[in-house]
Amino acid sequence: MICEVVAVGSELLLGQIVDTNSAWLGEQLALAGIDSFFQTKVGDNPERIRSAIELALSRSDAVICCGGLGPTQDDITRDIIAQIMGVPLVRDDEIVNKIRGMFGRRGRDMPENNLRQADVPVGAWVNPVQPGTAPGLICPIGDVKTGQVIYAVPGVPWEMMAMFNGGILPDIAERAGVSAVIKSRTLRTWGMSESGLAEVLADEIDRLDEAGGVTLAFLASGWEGLKVRLTAKADTDAAVATLLAEEEAVVRQIIGDRLIFGIDDETMESAVLDLCKVQGRTLATAESLTGGLIASRLTGIAGASAVFRGSVVPYASDVKYDVLGVPDGPVVSEEAVRAMAVGVCELLKTDCSLAVTGVAGPDPQEGIDPGTVWMATCIDGEVESFMVNWPFDRRRVREFTTITSLNALRLRLLGDPGLATGF
Amino acid sequence: MICEVVAVGSELLLGQIVDTNSAWLGEQLALAGIDSFFQTKVGDNPERIRSAIELALSRSDAVICCGGLGPTQDDITRDIIAQIMGVPLVRDDEIVNKIRGMFGRRGRDMPENNLRQADVPVGAWVNPVQPGTAPGLICPIGDVKTGQVIYAVPGVPWEMMAMFNGGILPDIAERAGVSAVIKSRTLRTWGMSESGLAEVLADEIDRLDEAGGVTLAFLASGWEGLKVRLTAKADTDAAVATLLAEEEAVVRQIIGDRLIFGIDDETMESAVLDLCKVQGRTLATAESLTGGLIASRLTGIAGASAVFRGSVVPYASDVKYDVLGVPDGPVVSEEAVRAMAVGVCELLKTDCSLAVTGVAGPDPQEGIDPGTVWMATCIDGEVESFMVNWPFDRRRVREFTTITSLNALRLRLLGDPGLATGF
Repeated sequence: MICEVVAVGSELLLGQIVDTNSAWLGEQLALAGIDSFFQTKVGDNPERIRSAIELALSRSDAVICCGGLGPTQDDITRDIIAQIMGVPLVRDDEIVNKIRGMFGRRGRDMPENNLRQADVPVGAWVNPVQPGTAPGLICPIGDVKTGQVIYAVPGVPWEMMAMFNGGILPDIAERAGVSAVIKSRTLRTWGMSESGLAEVLADEIDRLDEAGGVTLAFLASGWEGLKVRLTAKADTDAAVATLLAEEEAVVRQIIGDRLIFGIDDETMESAVLDLCKVQGRTLATAESLTGGLIASRLTGIAGASAVFRGSVVPYASDVKYDVLGVPDGPVVSEEAVRAMAVGVCELLKTDCSLAVTGVAGPDPQEGIDPGTVWMATCIDGEVESFMVNWPFDRRRVREFTTITSLNALRLRLLGDPGLATGF
Repeated sequence: MICEVVAVGSELLLGQIVDTNSAWLGEQLALAGIDSFFQTKVGDNPERIRSAIELALSRSDAVICCGGLGPTQDDITRDIIAQIMGVPLVRDDEIVNKIRGMFGRRGRDMPENNLRQADVPVGAWVNPVQPGTAPGLICPIGDVKTGQVIYAVPGVPWEMMAMFNGGILPDIAERAGVSAVIKSRTLRTWGMSESGLAEVLADEIDRLDEAGGVTLAFLASGWEGLKVRLTAKADTDAAVATLLAEEEAVVRQIIGDRLIFGIDDETMESAVLDLCKVQGRTLATAESLTGGLIASRLTGIAGASAVFRGSVVPYASDVKYDVLGVPDGPVVSEEAVRAMAVGVCELLKTDCSLAVTGVAGPDPQEGIDPGTVWMATCIDGEVESFMVNWPFDRRRVREFTTITSLNALRLRLLGDPGLATGF
């Protein structure tokens, strides 16, 4: 069973709205074990909508057509589908009453335009789930059970999602006779480049290609880490879980545990907070270059207050001297960053800290190139420090410094003295 | 001139990444007056990438092919384009040296895999802009000047955007012989809801619909503000500039200057920094709830150090008491936030400050509901404070507090005592 998505709406082509619906549908189809090879966006133009749907039918068994079911003149998806089916539209009185009732419950009259939403191509039926005023359609092409099918859903995300889960997924799974389960697991890494990881894992990727069952892909995600995603397919949930666990163990053996800071949605900041919590430690940050970015990531996690006591952003040099006790002298230096790390532990009474100072750019500062960053971690009064030269713009210098400094603390908390500075 | 976008990457089809690149490209093409009727997403499969590009070439003059230029084995876009052109790939030594240099500056060896990125189809040339390790390609199909063209760009958004603006847009505009000028101006507002703005501007929107030349649209953009976008079309740059300036004046008259904090890329934080700079003032923040988010936004602006001296994030209650002199008592209170605003001015020796304390959620704290936030501004020792109850999740409570507190300071610096808390 191959299913593709056609998203209808000029606002999508013009970039006024980002098409998140197709991404969501793609993920749901993949998880249901249904292949999907293309997704198309097309504007509110009858000929082009028709050509996009016909093209999709020429290469897929099912098409999910998203958008263009509203009450306005632009909304022509149901007309085009009727044309493709070669049938007229018939007004469905039951739907008319349903829509009229929805308006009535809000104390409003139904505009005449909304009657168009009750038109159904002859031979098609309405999606059993209808959370809004727009009904979804299930439109067979050819034989009702064994032929192709077009599913029309509104472009409003929550309506579309409810209709997919309640009306489309059961129908498509039955047509496909799907029994396979597909699931993914993402290993989030920091400290090795994408090409470096690809080289280290090349033999394993070749092996997986031959063996089948599990695939491995990379996804560079900036300061969210470099992701290694494992996807497994098998007959049962249990078999998929086993495949993923086995492959994760293999990958961990090849690239080493220290590179992997989290699984799936686990972030670097949650990894650090969790380690501190388990070890009964408290944390502070002293951030010149990052200017609060590290603290804001840590406090983005609900429950951070159990570990994180606060931060000082000593942006001006004399704030570094006066508030954190940095000795007079250059503020982008190893001496300064180490003093910041110790000073913030003392001021905020914590046993761990991170400190950062550097030149974010775009211009040099005191003769030091932009991208030059000193970072330090302090645990129980013991300081470690290192320098990085980022070849990036201001934003990424700050973002990569944030994840790299947090990673340095993570590795020390794990008892690993090595400092991962790669990306 | 018709141009369409083909986005390459199985991660897009599988919904692991939302394809924001196509939306951005669609917007840029529309602004440049170039038609775009379809956008396609296709996975990392040679036959299907080829069929998607060939289909695009069958109905458009130019194709922007986004993604699949990286160093790994999945990255096959350049190979497919060479096949479509019917030419071999040749390794470009200049690019090899450039990539090797990039790795060298980071103190690392170039993995062998990256050499693939230096392969160029014969007859194609490299995009003059190359911000990352992946070069972009400009690949003529048929006659170099009058034939069709494929532009290949990496899927990394900032690399893609730089290449589009610097290398593709000039080339495509020349091929299109574009003469009509279309430009936009965005007025960024804070303090009135979208439906409120739509109501106030309803008559003006009707007038523009009839008059033509300029359109007006709204775009709710979270903590980037609620945007009012004016788009004008005319024969010359000068005529477009006049249309936009006239319409901006009309809109300012209708909605009032105080709502508009910036034009186009001007952010709330840059507006505040600019006002402080002009008035010779220095700034500090004291952030409990936001945990450094306000400071990180301010320091995201190059040159912030001329105004911004630093921040204290007193996340733990006793840090509020000990470091900022907050009196013993509840820390989510008017008394606490006012003391934080005064305390941080004194500690960091500034004449302005912002302070924030509240409950980010998801759980209540000391019996106070999540979303309850106290904010204060201090200018020359004078404090103003106010409370907001946000009906949002943790992330948006923090983000909306950030822009709202900055806006409150902006209005006071402008000499306007009103505090805009709307959204």
